[in-house]
Amino acid sequence: MRKIHVIGIGAGDPDQLTLQAVKALRGTDVFFILDKGEVKADLTGLRRDMLDAHLPERTYRVVQARDPERDRRAGGAAYSPAVGDWRSARADIYERLIAEELGEGEVGAFLVWGDPSLYDSTLGILEEVLARGAVAFEYDVVPGISSVSALVARHRTGLNRVARPVQITTGRRLAEGFPEGVDDVVVMLDAHQTFRQYADQADQEIDIYWGAYIGTPDEILVSGPLAEAAPRIERLRAEARERKGWIMDTYLLRRNPGDG
Amino acid sequence: MRKIHVIGIGAGDPDQLTLQAVKALRGTDVFFILDKGEVKADLTGLRRDMLDAHLPERTYRVVQARDPERDRRAGGAAYSPAVGDWRSARADIYERLIAEELGEGEVGAFLVWGDPSLYDSTLGILEEVLARGAVAFEYDVVPGISSVSALVARHRTGLNRVARPVQITTGRRLAEGFPEGVDDVVVMLDAHQTFRQYADQADQEIDIYWGAYIGTPDEILVSGPLAEAAPRIERLRAEARERKGWIMDTYLLRRNPGDG
Repeated sequence: MRKIHVIGIGAGDPDQLTLQAVKALRGTDVFFILDKGEVKADLTGLRRDMLDAHLPERTYRVVQARDPERDRRAGGAAYSPAVGDWRSARADIYERLIAEELGEGEVGAFLVWGDPSLYDSTLGILEEVLARGAVAFEYDVVPGISSVSALVARHRTGLNRVARPVQITTGRRLAEGFPEGVDDVVVMLDAHQTFRQYADQADQEIDIYWGAYIGTPDEILVSGPLAEAAPRIERLRAEARERKGWIMDTYLLRRNPGDG
Repeated sequence: MRKIHVIGIGAGDPDQLTLQAVKALRGTDVFFILDKGEVKADLTGLRRDMLDAHLPERTYRVVQARDPERDRRAGGAAYSPAVGDWRSARADIYERLIAEELGEGEVGAFLVWGDPSLYDSTLGILEEVLARGAVAFEYDVVPGISSVSALVARHRTGLNRVARPVQITTGRRLAEGFPEGVDDVVVMLDAHQTFRQYADQADQEIDIYWGAYIGTPDEILVSGPLAEAAPRIERLRAEARERKGWIMDTYLLRRNPGDG
């Protein structure tokens, strides 16, 4: 039986690998690396560096494939179907990779930035491949340090305040309104700096804890009252994106209730 | 200057330590272990096993102190003040430990189960100690695998569904109602199995992904439609709690929208 590890490799700092992840790397015959094109070549390089560091004997194979482009023009209500098509196109690729590149009795692995449980499609795609029934395999999940945990660790703050909830959501959702019933909101996948939408609301006091390239030498951290921090983040983000060609950032918005 | 690491040590599996955590352990002179009494002696033992595994030279000191009991009788509106008193009592202890047991130029560490950012008071207490001004130190945070990440990894599911939010909350909050605006809710600190409150609601379909002692040899996992799984979890939880004297459990409730 083929076996696959889905390994969370942390948010960017190679030392965020867990011992469990290192063991899984060492037990892997074939690594599948999906490349999003030259823009994210840095990220592919970081993954290869991790393999070099922990598997110096090079007793593994790396199979690289091109990730299909997602149709990002589709907005609003069309979002989920576009994601569905994209997931299906990825499932075609994963199915072929597993069937053709992984021998019976071999162990394959997908390396996922952060934690495979947060805004990552790998588990859903593997379930889709299994459901199609053309190729059989077992798989397990090795949890990783998410960019969310890494962000708040660097800011030395908690995700939640005492006895209160925290919500993790997307930039797209935040654009529809500040979530109901929570004052601590982590925002991922926000290409549009949606936090700016809340920077001018003088009726409530919101703090932001923002970070980009967390845990890497390029790390940038900004925190403070949103109204003051927002222009600074906007500037730093634009500069960094220009310099590196891509950006991965996350932030926590913390609303101070009772100030409204 | 004294230095302190707040180290997330994962949800129970010693292999969930990150390489960063292992390095921090190895750079520590004094470990502060707060003991909640005999009930959780198992957990204290697990932490000592980690130190033995990664610091075989035993070039460190362990300072153990008794954690003050929290007044759990205080309910409802009284909850936050009771937590405040408890935090203040803990700050007294931490302040004394750091001042008396950690020499100038030494490195101390607090080992936190899971990730220090989720429902853990260590960072808040250290900030309180610093604010009092009686003892000075620097500190940093090493993120860990939270019980939330470990739970969903073992169930091989995501925290969120595609492009949708997830909320992390407490049993006490869940008792007040299913959170607004989200269908995926992780519940921590639930001593009362509040999920039962939602098991009989025939108008909505909810799945539960539950786990106790995750990543340890005692691990128990149950998942499925809440109405069917709830009685089984209730029975397994009572048996395990009786057998071990304590339980640590977490769960994800996943509401299937459109079925209402």
